[in-house]
Amino acid sequence: MGLLLNGETLEDLQRNDLQIIQRRDVYRFTTDAVLLAHFAHLAPGTNVIDLGSGNGILPLLLTALFPGAKFVGVEIQQVLADMARRSVRLNELEDSIKIIEGDLTRISDYIKPNTFDTVITNPPYFPESSGLISANPSIAAAKQELMCSLEDIMIASNTALKGRGSLFMVHRPERLMDICHFSRKYDLEPKKMRFVFPKIGQGARVVLMEFVKNSSPGLVVLPPLILFGDDGKYTQEAREIYYPEGDQCEG
Amino acid sequence: MGLLLNGETLEDLQRNDLQIIQRRDVYRFTTDAVLLAHFAHLAPGTNVIDLGSGNGILPLLLTALFPGAKFVGVEIQQVLADMARRSVRLNELEDSIKIIEGDLTRISDYIKPNTFDTVITNPPYFPESSGLISANPSIAAAKQELMCSLEDIMIASNTALKGRGSLFMVHRPERLMDICHFSRKYDLEPKKMRFVFPKIGQGARVVLMEFVKNSSPGLVVLPPLILFGDDGKYTQEAREIYYPEGDQCEG
Repeated sequence: MGLLLNGETLEDLQRNDLQIIQRRDVYRFTTDAVLLAHFAHLAPGTNVIDLGSGNGILPLLLTALFPGAKFVGVEIQQVLADMARRSVRLNELEDSIKIIEGDLTRISDYIKPNTFDTVITNPPYFPESSGLISANPSIAAAKQELMCSLEDIMIASNTALKGRGSLFMVHRPERLMDICHFSRKYDLEPKKMRFVFPKIGQGARVVLMEFVKNSSPGLVVLPPLILFGDDGKYTQEAREIYYPEGDQCEG
Repeated sequence: MGLLLNGETLEDLQRNDLQIIQRRDVYRFTTDAVLLAHFAHLAPGTNVIDLGSGNGILPLLLTALFPGAKFVGVEIQQVLADMARRSVRLNELEDSIKIIEGDLTRISDYIKPNTFDTVITNPPYFPESSGLISANPSIAAAKQELMCSLEDIMIASNTALKGRGSLFMVHRPERLMDICHFSRKYDLEPKKMRFVFPKIGQGARVVLMEFVKNSSPGLVVLPPLILFGDDGKYTQEAREIYYPEGDQCEG
């Protein structure tokens, strides 16, 4: 396995025999990326840009869910961009996924503005000032707005998208007001929202959102996504998202 | 029953033997008001203003749920304000509820600004231009923003409330972005949000929100409120809200 460096492991993505390179001491993808991939919908031929691509989890998963779409992933951390590129090669997806090591606050340096059908992003959730900074700089940058803010994400999304193009984002409900504030500021109108609840009696932990550039107002709040039943096991929907090939059915 | 006029009926509110005067040809309260009353929380001694009080449903219900709170209801329609006043007398609640016939866009004419602990409101949901106007002018004014807009509600709430005072509102999820836009504009920060779903697999029909004046950001999305189970009957929570005294348990 010449594509794997010291300290790296391969994780099975449970779809199309896909594998992804992970490493313990840098940011690893979370189930939020898996939820976002399943929330998105991409027509064949769609060209998609992933803002803050990490180790490439979103484009990798999405090639399996939406064959025929084309992906560009932008990642500022050299070590993650390199892992993502090697995962693309490992899965022989060079024709579908291109990884750019770059800073999304300078997105126009890498792409032609207003040319993408879709933006997808699993951005840092927490403000720089929130005082929860990880001692690990790679993890800190992925979780907190150290290298890009929510506003930067909205600016880059507006820059990348064609008119009527879609932005799919996963975030934390506690940031919802900031999200709405900046999305309207940059002409990205929230059209669909889905909240993810660990259990039926618990508050939402995650929000999945679809915005459309230059669209009129009008929001649909989709059915709640409940992850665990009263029996402590994954609900059927969560199982189909996390373990589509049937492994580890018992949550 | 000298308090009842021709064409009016009495409806049992299922709490503390409360009754409310209704009339078929004017706006009648909906279950949204009942959901809002149960979403609110009022400490004893709280002084509350209800913006757009209709036939007084919210103050009447809330006296049963939160004994010791004091209410002012503002209603622009003379016929509804009169019905609300007579319902207050009928239930001997004159010490707890005062009804003002007035225009909430001129709220400072009736109340001393910055003196209320809590605002509660079940405002018109639909923009004036939405083309669904009822032929009945009383119903139209209660459902569409003919006499007051969402922005007017936020302005009046900001005017009425003390610093750190709470606003409880019921509205439609499709207006959420407008709600958030105007609430921030008038320093009312959304702190809690609860979506109401008819069934587990359906989109949200109603949103219940709590805002706090001059508060910092940070939103909690509460557990979903599901009204009907797979069996087509009310869920236990919906039954406890709608039929606390056990009548008509079978939805």
